[in-house]
This record gives sequence, C-alpha cells and structure tokens, in this order.
Amino acid sequence: MKTITVHASRIYDVRVGQGLLSGTGETLRALGAGSRVALVSDDNVFPLYGERAEKSLTQAGFTVLRFVFPAGEKSKNLAVYGALLNAMCEAGLSRFDTVAALGGGVVGDLAGFAAATYQRGAGFIQLPTSLLAAVDSSVGGKTAVDLTAGKNQVGAFYQPMAVLCDTDVFATLPEEEVQNGAAEVVKTAMIADAALFETLEREPARVISEETVARCVAVKRDHVEKDERDLGVRMMLNFGHTFGHAVEAVSGYTVPHGRAVAMGMAAVARAAHAMGYCDESVARRLTAMLEKAGLPTALPYSAEDLARAAGTDKKSAGDQVRLIVPRAIGRCDILSVEKSALSDWLKAGGAR
Amino acid sequence: MKTITVHASRIYDVRVGQGLLSGTGETLRALGAGSRVALVSDDNVFPLYGERAEKSLTQAGFTVLRFVFPAGEKSKNLAVYGALLNAMCEAGLSRFDTVAALGGGVVGDLAGFAAATYQRGAGFIQLPTSLLAAVDSSVGGKTAVDLTAGKNQVGAFYQPMAVLCDTDVFATLPEEEVQNGAAEVVKTAMIADAALFETLEREPARVISEETVARCVAVKRDHVEKDERDLGVRMMLNFGHTFGHAVEAVSGYTVPHGRAVAMGMAAVARAAHAMGYCDESVARRLTAMLEKAGLPTALPYSAEDLARAAGTDKKSAGDQVRLIVPRAIGRCDILSVEKSALSDWLKAGGAR
Repeated sequence: MKTITVHASRIYDVRVGQGLLSGTGETLRALGAGSRVALVSDDNVFPLYGERAEKSLTQAGFTVLRFVFPAGEKSKNLAVYGALLNAMCEAGLSRFDTVAALGGGVVGDLAGFAAATYQRGAGFIQLPTSLLAAVDSSVGGKTAVDLTAGKNQVGAFYQPMAVLCDTDVFATLPEEEVQNGAAEVVKTAMIADAALFETLEREPARVISEETVARCVAVKRDHVEKDERDLGVRMMLNFGHTFGHAVEAVSGYTVPHGRAVAMGMAAVARAAHAMGYCDESVARRLTAMLEKAGLPTALPYSAEDLARAAGTDKKSAGDQVRLIVPRAIGRCDILSVEKSALSDWLKAGGAR
Repeated sequence: MKTITVHASRIYDVRVGQGLLSGTGETLRALGAGSRVALVSDDNVFPLYGERAEKSLTQAGFTVLRFVFPAGEKSKNLAVYGALLNAMCEAGLSRFDTVAALGGGVVGDLAGFAAATYQRGAGFIQLPTSLLAAVDSSVGGKTAVDLTAGKNQVGAFYQPMAVLCDTDVFATLPEEEVQNGAAEVVKTAMIADAALFETLEREPARVISEETVARCVAVKRDHVEKDERDLGVRMMLNFGHTFGHAVEAVSGYTVPHGRAVAMGMAAVARAAHAMGYCDESVARRLTAMLEKAGLPTALPYSAEDLARAAGTDKKSAGDQVRLIVPRAIGRCDILSVEKSALSDWLKAGGAR
C-alpha cells in the first residue's frame, strides 16, 4: 500500500492498495467520524462493491443510510442532490456524520457537493471505483453538479477526510473505463512526470498499477497544495481539458470524458507544435501513446463550434482563456489566449 | 459612518451609515470586482431600493443581471436557488463576477449560497435592508436554503467582500420589521454588551441608530473571528435560538423569527433562574426590555412538541444539545444539555 498525504485546507491521506474498500469502516472510526454514514453510489457500482463497503461500515458500528441513484452524468443535477440532502435530513444525520462516495467521478462530485453543503459541511470520504476518479477527481476537493445551463457550474472546494483507492477494483474495470482513466494518467505524465511517460511507452499495462496511481495522485497533490482554489498552477491539470470540455459540449455529452480529453490533448499538442511552442516529437509521442491506449486523437468537429464552447470555460476571465500548452514531455505552460484566437488554435490542432 | 473590519477566512469591512446604498457600485469597483453583477432581491424590497442600488452599479460601469423572487421564507429553497444559478450562467457570469444581496435574511442567505457555490465561489456583497439582517445575518458568512425536510439544512460558510448597512433604509422600516431586528439587538446585548443593554433600557428608540447597529456588528465580528465554523464560542450567538427555532417549527413558521427568538430568550432566562444559573432580575429585566420593544415573552406551546423540534437543532451532537444560558446581563454560558432534559427546561421556562 502507498500513502500520499495532502496538506490542503484539510490534511488527509490518499491510500492506494489492495483490499482497501474492506477497511472503510475502520478508517472512518480512526478519524473520529460520527455514528451515521450516508453511503452514496450509483446503480452500476453499488451491485458490484456496495456490500463490501456497507459491511465494513456496519461492522465498525456505523448506521448506514444507503443512497443509490441511476448511473450517468444525467443524474449529476440539483434534483438528485436535493433528494440526497432530504434523505440525509430525514435519517437524522448531523454535520458530524459522514458522506461516503462509492463510485466514479459523477458519484464523487455529487456526494462531495452534498457533504460540502449539508448543514454547511459534513464529513466526507472518497471511495473511487474508476481509474479516472482515483487518479484525478477524488483528490483535491473539487465537487460539483451540473446546471441546465452548463456542466459543473455549481459546486464547492471541499476536501475529503480520506481517499481510499482499492486497486482490486481497478483490475476488474471494463476496457472502456480503463481507457477513460488512461487519458488522465497520460495527462499527468505530460504535465509533470516524464519518467512515468517513458515507463508507460515501454509497458502500457502499468497504467492501472498501484505505482502509477500513486504517482498520479502525488502530482495532483503537488498542484493542489500550491493552489487549492484553482487560480494559478492548479490550472495545469486542465491540460487537454479546455478543448476536451468543448468536445463534450459540442457532441451533446455523447463522447466520454477520457476520450474527449485525449482529443483535446492531441489537438493542443499539434497546435503547440504548429505555433512553435514544442518539438514535433512531443505531439508524435503523445499521439502514439494515446492510440496505444485505445484513445482517439483526431478532432472531427467544427473549429467555430468548439471555440464558442471553449469560450465559456470556467478558466476564462473576460476575453481571455487559459490554455495549457505542452513545451516538452513532462512540462507545460499556462498561456492566456484571446477568445477570438481560439478557433485558430483549434484549426491548427486539426479541427474542421 | 462607522467601519467594522472582520478578519475571517476573508478580510472585509462592514460599513454602517447614511446613504451607503448609493455607493454600492463604487465599493465593488474599489474591490476589483469583475464586470457583471447579479442583483438579487425580493418583490417587497426591490420596488423600494432596487433602483438606488442598480443605478449605482450601472453608473460604476457594471452590467447588471436583475433577479427578483417572491418575498418570504417559502422562496428560500433549492428551486429558486437553481433558477438563480441558471440565470447567472445564461447571462455569462464568471466566478470573478459578483452576487449582490439586496434585502433581509432570506435574500442574503439564498444569494449568499448561490455566490458560495456558483463556479465553486463567485464574488459576494451584502446590502441588508432589514435591521435583523444588518445586525445579524449579513455578517459572518452563514448562507443557507431550506430543505423540505428542514430549515437552513443546506448551505455554506462564505464570507462577503463587503457589507453595506444603509441606516437611511432602517429609518423607513415598518414597526414589525424593527421589532424583529430588536430581538437580535437585545440578544447581542445579553451575551456581550451590558452597557448597550442599559442604554436601551433608558432609550429604546436607539435600537435603529448607527451606534447600536455598529456595536452589534462588532460583537458578532468578535465571535466570528474566534470561531468562524461555529464549533465553539460562536454558538453564543444562538442565545434564545434553540427554543426560538423550535417555536418557528411548531408554529409551522407562522411566528416571525424575531418574535420566536424573543419567546426563546425569555423562556431560557426564566428556566435559568429556576435552575439557579442566574438572578431573578436577569429574567425580569430581559422580559421588560422585550415587552417594551413590542415583543412576546410567553411560551404558549407544548413542552413536548418544542423539545422534539429542539432535539433536531444543528448545534446538537449525539444526545446532547448546546443551550445558551444567561448568567447575568451581558454574560451567557454554553451548556451541554441532554435531549431528554429539554422538556424540563421548557416547562421551567413557561411552556405547557
């Protein structure tokens, strides 16, 4: 097992290793959590891992409120959020009790926002069951739900009390889920860990290993500790995401997050090379890596449509958008780009 | 004009004085706010003061999104909150823009929670137009909306960038609104300012003066600075509120907040005397003060019903409830009381 300690507005451990899910109850007990736990999951994940987590909690003496909602981004809204809060209130949970998020990014974001706001802040533990959630969304305290008018537009920065990444779970993930997570692993290597990039070029299967997950968590930890509120260096973690989010929006959210980010990374790397920010080999090695992971690298969308979507990014301020631009494998810059220049970048990246 | 500076997780000024509403735009400009402002108010307040605030904002160069909702606690829910957030998103507000709350406690709580969570935290300014909001709810960063299952059960601690208490507005308040605020002024004097209590015994009309409002804000500031998250000494501000909230719940929220708090203060003072925590004169002087202000002091409800409602208070932990008990004028204790003992306290306080 590996432990990464995060020193943010709250200090907490991220543990990566086998069988951690069965230690959920013990972990919460050691953290001094109140006697009740809202175990939040979706109807894909709960049948697979719900019993393991719930048993661990009840054996440690916790009373468990089970809240399972339909899987998918469409559930990440204010209605499901309100239903969860009402269920917590009716079950008599206090702000000293805990919300446990068992699932991928959608579960973590929604349950985390509920924990952040229930009685102005209850306890919170992340139990990521997807590679993507383990290496990215479950660490760092970003929580959110979607509005009718936009994705992730409501939320809070709210750090968990602990994150348990059970690698037994990642070993049973379907191929598509591994690909989704692989995109974030490649992103992490591109912005801060050239050695990890080289390891994965040689041994792609190591993407779900304890070692790889722990290294990604450590990179994320470093960025979060320097900039918890996402006003500076944390934006680096957005590499591939400005165009990736635009792909998600323009496709009506039919393209999964990891595939959209892969397209976004490949596109911005091609554009960065075209504009003289990096060597041709950077785009070539990145593209090869993504393709080896089964991820798409072309950008078959209209540059104008993507630019319009990217212009509403949360990283925008006035008429500027912050774009993360690769300079080498393992090193990126944060570049302020005029919104009016986005479609040029996108065309240079291969958009129509 | 008086300025009270609050050193919480954000440092900000609370200004108390004449004509401050007309300086809203200038104040935000000086604070470096983004170019857009969501001006949030209700349909009682906006017709009276909306133009003054909006004109000040547009003259200072801000683009204003006007959001006016039906007055009353029934609007303080997730549906109105969601409508506000969607309106902000559609109007293109970023997290660098500002939410301005123009109104009483309901407007401040709802708009504040929207500001706290829009894109994980936008700018926020409080423009309290009720005495109650000026002396209590607009300072200290508590924001909330109600759930179907309970009042103020969702929210965030989120400090404003500034609070402008325009005393011209308080001079035009209807009698009932002054009474509501007077309850919080008396509460403040009871927990921390015996001299203010004595001043008001001699000159009750000074309750809406710049001096009184500023002293109440200073007491609140002192408690918030010591305990922003309401885990210790800030609970002192809850004097009269444990039983007051119970009165609100048991009456189906037909008793206004200030009147309920007055009943709660009088009851807990009588009980405190009966149980030997304070002199008879404390309850007598407090009751006389409240009656002079036109506030009720009897507690014509069932002790069992009130105890059940008080047992769900957010200040509860396990089977204990924190009760604020007067020891003298200007001094209270925070007492942990078993939930099973609450009905004895309530009966000693005069409940049926």
